[in-house]
Amino acid sequence: MLPYQPIGYVHSPFTDPDRIPKGIGAQHPEEGELELLRKYEDGLTDIEGYSHLYVLWAIDRVEGFDLLVTPPSDDRPHGLFTTRSPRRPNPIGLTVVELLHRSDCTLHVRGIDMLDQTPILDIKPYTSNVPVEKLRRGWLAEAEEKKRRIVQW
Amino acid sequence: MLPYQPIGYVHSPFTDPDRIPKGIGAQHPEEGELELLRKYEDGLTDIEGYSHLYVLWAIDRVEGFDLLVTPPSDDRPHGLFTTRSPRRPNPIGLTVVELLHRSDCTLHVRGIDMLDQTPILDIKPYTSNVPVEKLRRGWLAEAEEKKRRIVQW
Repeated sequence: MLPYQPIGYVHSPFTDPDRIPKGIGAQHPEEGELELLRKYEDGLTDIEGYSHLYVLWAIDRVEGFDLLVTPPSDDRPHGLFTTRSPRRPNPIGLTVVELLHRSDCTLHVRGIDMLDQTPILDIKPYTSNVPVEKLRRGWLAEAEEKKRRIVQW
Repeated sequence: MLPYQPIGYVHSPFTDPDRIPKGIGAQHPEEGELELLRKYEDGLTDIEGYSHLYVLWAIDRVEGFDLLVTPPSDDRPHGLFTTRSPRRPNPIGLTVVELLHRSDCTLHVRGIDMLDQTPILDIKPYTSNVPVEKLRRGWLAEAEEKKRRIVQW
């Protein structure tokens, strides 16, 4: 048991998990706010210079997990750790958001895929990419290709 | 207080935090293993198809934090949440590793920047990038530019 505590909360348009876009080609254009507790405000100094941030958050409205899951992107089961299923041994979410602007303790961002009032655990700078030519994406790439062929038919 | 527990441990060549490369241009070519507890093995099904993974881990050998920190990359302080300092309100580390191969519960990876025996909290697939032309990297880009000019002199 490790002592993690929220540093703030997400303000999101989503109150129903079923409304959050999932699966292949899911876009996350939704805007929202990351509101940090006042005592952490100095930790945001200079953050306006960054276009993108990692947000670590507590997936706080799920319980339990299965080691094999069939994600919305595919019709067969895959290992939990190859998916973004919210039901995980340690339910910690990871989202890349685009920083639009900051007002004191509040970051206005695009790319929200969390529920409203989700506890924020950490914010880190997004500073580099894996080169596209080196990226392989396993069953997800296969499922995308299958979907593309079906659409072409 | 949230109940997070290790799903496994990192085998790393690093036992001394001062030996881990930090700062501008730091490379992380080191190989190591992510060894999951036997009970989570099925969660790795199909993971061989992915070239890169996110690893969330517990930064378990630090205490406390400062909201303004002077990182090794620069000579002036910046907000904690614009840095990767290990001293954070919730000490959770995030590393992108390249998956080399798998043996049962063990993932052999490149890109290790954790200490040996670091507790692993979660593994997620790395599936997409922020387009380079959209990425701004704040004080880090400025510090890199400054260093480049000094080298050119």
